[in-house]
Amino acid sequence: MKAIGITKSLPTSDKNCFIAFETEKPMPEDHDLLVKIHAVSVNPVDYKVRQNAAKDEELDEPKILGWDAAGIVEAVGNEVSNFKVGDEVYYSGEYDRPGCNAEFQLIDSRIAGHKPSNLSFAEASAMPLTSLTAWEAIFDRLRLRKNGESGKKLLIIGGAGGVGSIAIQIAKKLTNIEVIATASREETSNWCKKLGADVIVNHHELTQEMESANITEVDYILNFSDTDMHWDAMAKLIKPQGQICSIVENKDPLDLNKLKNKSASFHWEFMFTRSLFKTEDMIAQHKILEELRLLFEEGSLKSTAYKTYEGLDTDVFREVHEFQESGKSIGKNVISYI
Amino acid sequence: MKAIGITKSLPTSDKNCFIAFETEKPMPEDHDLLVKIHAVSVNPVDYKVRQNAAKDEELDEPKILGWDAAGIVEAVGNEVSNFKVGDEVYYSGEYDRPGCNAEFQLIDSRIAGHKPSNLSFAEASAMPLTSLTAWEAIFDRLRLRKNGESGKKLLIIGGAGGVGSIAIQIAKKLTNIEVIATASREETSNWCKKLGADVIVNHHELTQEMESANITEVDYILNFSDTDMHWDAMAKLIKPQGQICSIVENKDPLDLNKLKNKSASFHWEFMFTRSLFKTEDMIAQHKILEELRLLFEEGSLKSTAYKTYEGLDTDVFREVHEFQESGKSIGKNVISYI
Repeated sequence: MKAIGITKSLPTSDKNCFIAFETEKPMPEDHDLLVKIHAVSVNPVDYKVRQNAAKDEELDEPKILGWDAAGIVEAVGNEVSNFKVGDEVYYSGEYDRPGCNAEFQLIDSRIAGHKPSNLSFAEASAMPLTSLTAWEAIFDRLRLRKNGESGKKLLIIGGAGGVGSIAIQIAKKLTNIEVIATASREETSNWCKKLGADVIVNHHELTQEMESANITEVDYILNFSDTDMHWDAMAKLIKPQGQICSIVENKDPLDLNKLKNKSASFHWEFMFTRSLFKTEDMIAQHKILEELRLLFEEGSLKSTAYKTYEGLDTDVFREVHEFQESGKSIGKNVISYI
Repeated sequence: MKAIGITKSLPTSDKNCFIAFETEKPMPEDHDLLVKIHAVSVNPVDYKVRQNAAKDEELDEPKILGWDAAGIVEAVGNEVSNFKVGDEVYYSGEYDRPGCNAEFQLIDSRIAGHKPSNLSFAEASAMPLTSLTAWEAIFDRLRLRKNGESGKKLLIIGGAGGVGSIAIQIAKKLTNIEVIATASREETSNWCKKLGADVIVNHHELTQEMESANITEVDYILNFSDTDMHWDAMAKLIKPQGQICSIVENKDPLDLNKLKNKSASFHWEFMFTRSLFKTEDMIAQHKILEELRLLFEEGSLKSTAYKTYEGLDTDVFREVHEFQESGKSIGKNVISYI
């Protein structure tokens, strides 16, 4: 099968930052599905791994990147009970296994879901990683209650990005909370409004912006942007006993004491935790993807695919990674193989 | 009335670190109770405020310290509905109001409870601050479920201290969780066992100690000891998606990223948050104290009073503060006025 990978961590300005190669089509065992991939999407994790996985020395074998994908099941392992050959699936993969930048891929059936029938493969491939991240952050970390948050306020920092775009929808549709989303350009601001955000504020000068919007404090904060940059603002804006969740590693030490007098909580959300540690509740991700499927099918949630590219091709990946790294990306960037 | 206070932050080696003085007996308004104090207990917050409140310049008027108290209601404000004159009460007070190191004190009735009838004033005064801290940490921050944690593990760092001593009891009696408590001396170790801890480990070399006890990870951690010192061990021992709660401010910056891959959560518990910010759910502390009262009365919980001193007297306070500062204190130190 054809695959695209890296042997060295190179900038996208380098023509050789991705290489195409032939490798053996893998065989599914145990819980695995063999999936013929139709479309994939690119997330920040893709370029972060590209930038760091082979920084110090060249790899002996190319590493196949890519996590979000949608495709058709070609074969199943012995332990698989929830999927059969021919099923259309979508999933966000595992951090420590070969990725979806290839014609075929093995994926643990406990973290895959049936593709929403009303979404194309491209539209579906845009969703798993960001939706799982947003869902886990909202329901497993912050613990918002379904239909139980009216009167409460949620601040989403980085509303127009991949995770922000689906988090706005999930929070609005499923919890009745008031959503304040940050966006700094007209285009991203309109995008957030269209997705359902009640209030838009600029994340430059966040505390002043919130003051102008007459919002002194919020019950919950989801940070999908720079954790260091927004730390002081988050500490100031969070209500006593409030909950903050972030998905972005901090670079410098943070003053955790700023949350002390408020008895506030800080949660990390890392979508790969369940599969990486093979937690007892790993199957939760399968269930979440199935629940999301129904929400897409009934029209409550919309795919956040914004730009679509074509071809399992090194130049295409180079272009998408470059755009993603620029920070100007809105919603999701998708690459259709077929 | 007689009161004891400080005008300067002085070490306990200084005879003048506390001064006795006469001041007007206050009048209750609105939600306040006027309480004739029968006994108080001393917590780390007492000496921390003594050490810091008048560090830079002498105060014009003496500051009355002291939070935990038990006594009898002498008069009530207009808004009080849950207490009447003559009621025996226990409470842990407010951070920013005059304390209980005095004959009388005003206390907001929304954060007071009826004294357990089977406890003496001295035994009761030992309990409010530590019990509220432990309760909020266990149920409001870590969110353990009553009778719902069998098969799960809770590590309590600092098991023999004031908060640890009641946290062990609450966790064991109300949640069915397995409790691993840390203690480093024979006396403290026996005390923790008597309170119900299932396993005792030494907090020096915590990770090795846990390894020797064959416990590789825990679902929850309550840290009532040095947050900086135990950070790496907590990050290592916490389960993926686990919950850590601390009550002790860190001194140096902490590497929060150590919890990232596990999607772990960090909660602060500060017992004064509700009263300091006058949160909407401030009345929760009254309800918790009433629930605790029933648990004391039915014998499910025991007072953790360990040493009792006598007299509203500067030398007594000096002695108790000194002992409390030494870090050798077990359970609670109580001062009986009457």
